[in-house]
Amino acid sequence: MTVTVAKGFSAAGVRAGLKKSGNPDLAVVLNEGPLNAAAAVFTSNRAQANPILWSKQAIADGQISAIVLNSGGANCYTGPQGFQTTHATAEKAAELLSISASDVLVCSTGLIGEQLDRDKVLAGVELAVSQLSNHAGEQAAEAIMTTDSVSKTAYEVSVSGYSIGGMAKGAGMLAPGLATMLVVITTDAVLDSSTLDRALRSATQVTFDRLDSDGCMSTNDQVTLMASGASGVAPEEAEFTALLTKVCESLAMQLLTDAEGSSHDIAIRVTNAATEHDAVVVGRSVARNNLFKAAIYGNDPNWGRILAAVGTTNAVFDPYDIDVSINGVSVSRKGQPDQPRELVDLKPRKVDIEISLNAGVHSATIFTNDLTHEYVTENSAYSS
Amino acid sequence: MTVTVAKGFSAAGVRAGLKKSGNPDLAVVLNEGPLNAAAAVFTSNRAQANPILWSKQAIADGQISAIVLNSGGANCYTGPQGFQTTHATAEKAAELLSISASDVLVCSTGLIGEQLDRDKVLAGVELAVSQLSNHAGEQAAEAIMTTDSVSKTAYEVSVSGYSIGGMAKGAGMLAPGLATMLVVITTDAVLDSSTLDRALRSATQVTFDRLDSDGCMSTNDQVTLMASGASGVAPEEAEFTALLTKVCESLAMQLLTDAEGSSHDIAIRVTNAATEHDAVVVGRSVARNNLFKAAIYGNDPNWGRILAAVGTTNAVFDPYDIDVSINGVSVSRKGQPDQPRELVDLKPRKVDIEISLNAGVHSATIFTNDLTHEYVTENSAYSS
Repeated sequence: MTVTVAKGFSAAGVRAGLKKSGNPDLAVVLNEGPLNAAAAVFTSNRAQANPILWSKQAIADGQISAIVLNSGGANCYTGPQGFQTTHATAEKAAELLSISASDVLVCSTGLIGEQLDRDKVLAGVELAVSQLSNHAGEQAAEAIMTTDSVSKTAYEVSVSGYSIGGMAKGAGMLAPGLATMLVVITTDAVLDSSTLDRALRSATQVTFDRLDSDGCMSTNDQVTLMASGASGVAPEEAEFTALLTKVCESLAMQLLTDAEGSSHDIAIRVTNAATEHDAVVVGRSVARNNLFKAAIYGNDPNWGRILAAVGTTNAVFDPYDIDVSINGVSVSRKGQPDQPRELVDLKPRKVDIEISLNAGVHSATIFTNDLTHEYVTENSAYSS
Repeated sequence: MTVTVAKGFSAAGVRAGLKKSGNPDLAVVLNEGPLNAAAAVFTSNRAQANPILWSKQAIADGQISAIVLNSGGANCYTGPQGFQTTHATAEKAAELLSISASDVLVCSTGLIGEQLDRDKVLAGVELAVSQLSNHAGEQAAEAIMTTDSVSKTAYEVSVSGYSIGGMAKGAGMLAPGLATMLVVITTDAVLDSSTLDRALRSATQVTFDRLDSDGCMSTNDQVTLMASGASGVAPEEAEFTALLTKVCESLAMQLLTDAEGSSHDIAIRVTNAATEHDAVVVGRSVARNNLFKAAIYGNDPNWGRILAAVGTTNAVFDPYDIDVSINGVSVSRKGQPDQPRELVDLKPRKVDIEISLNAGVHSATIFTNDLTHEYVTENSAYSS
């Protein structure tokens, strides 16, 4: 299933030998058509990996036939040699698939500042292309995992007869613009690339872009949507966008739940904001506050840290007219304590924070994780 | 010594019973004159504690005769009742010292959202005033400690015959605008309040404001400078500012070294920036990157995380023309690896990061700490 649930797509996931663990580390997804329309969104980090530099050019014409993804190395800050590796990867896939290299996207994930072994990558592409199958979506999803503990996949089937399937990797370093993630979504709907682009931007804006696991923005993020048109169904844009948003939402929540070393999934809902932007800014400020995140890890409803984080923003509000609830318990109202904090039960994994700014009618929810010993452990020993 | 090194100041530190531990928790510093000029800088957090709201009013005229500081409770988000406690504290000190309440500053530190025990505070003020001494600076410094493992004090004596002494508390939650800190600095120089204000802003801008231990901005920060004029020496403003900056620098470095659970003190020096602001922005972005901070804890010179953090800023630079050194080893130049990362020794507590943006002639240094298991432990069990 996953990226092969939609008709017109084949995939493969293989061992190219890039990961020390020997686990699968290279995937190919092929759009067999009849259409090859595509759209993608990229990290907004100005430090961008070579595959991002390549893929931005490749997708400029809205046409993509294949995507090659590798784990085991980010190919970022690796200079001209690194860019040539990305280029050679696209050329190799193009040659094997009899398509143009400019219709091949490349995604990489792993450690920054180390050269990928080009020979291993190219041999891996050859192996993957030889194994392309309409049933290998799960293998592809496994090959893009890094510190993920499980592969992330999702799909939706519309009543009108088209499908959307996706796979994602990411486990920490989740912050907007986007999170540290590689995502490939396929559909057999009949849609042109500009419609795909609008739908993808709309869907990511309220899903992946609202994940803020640890405030750290990656150099390699890419979310790609490819349409084969193989279902013959041409959906309304709004309907397609809604279904796509469901797939993105599912993948985003899977990323959240698997974030490195987390013990709580925290939804920070900001309500009664003057603008949606204000709500996002306030939610993000709380999501990035290490003191708040450590308190949640300790099952400590230390709501002062929430208000201190809110107070650092420029959103419209009266700092002494903000209401805060944690897991349904109103802990602070109008700048004063309300219910005793001891009533809050933070033992469940899922935590709901609600912050009412009492300044308008807009709202937004930011999703984050707690700051745990395990997060520190995983991220203090990543490259060594 | 500390705040009593300057002539014309007395101090006391007592047990008011606000801390569960029973440790000293209330301090008073009295300016005996002949001058009572003062200046202060406050947290830029919009969520401000009651003592901040009070103190901003009290210092508006540039005259302060005494300051009351308590640990064991922040008196923040405690509503009108909390403000009345602050007001009553100033009134009590004023009555006992035969001065005006509007010449009394109040500072509090501790947990947000809990009422201070007003009776204990007022009895503590009475006890402290009864113990005021020209030799009790160290006791005052101890009474303002929270999670600090040591008290922080500093002093400088000018060749021209005046002195500057200071005390600080703070151990984490250090971020600009200011860090989570209470600082009192005294001098017996003859200076008016507007000169003190300029000197204090100049000194804090390059010292306390460049500490960014964990990116979290407090609701209670306050740095106060009081001048008694008792030395009879009227220094040049530039000379006084330089000496004051030395005192602030010493206190700031003591705060950094004692930051909660830290195992490395990290100086992030950004050079060749187009503006000093750019240098500060870039340094701060790196200082707030949890992945970078966790890597340093793990003695892992994962320089890609530095460049990824730099890339999230809007500073002027070419992302592929940035040079990065760690502890003197040039690990990345012009967007590529340079010396092998294995050459970097991160075992010493002190870490020097140098980032050259190659975009101008300005520079700045931001000081931060690593992200450790002990940080998570301390901050997940603070209020419980």
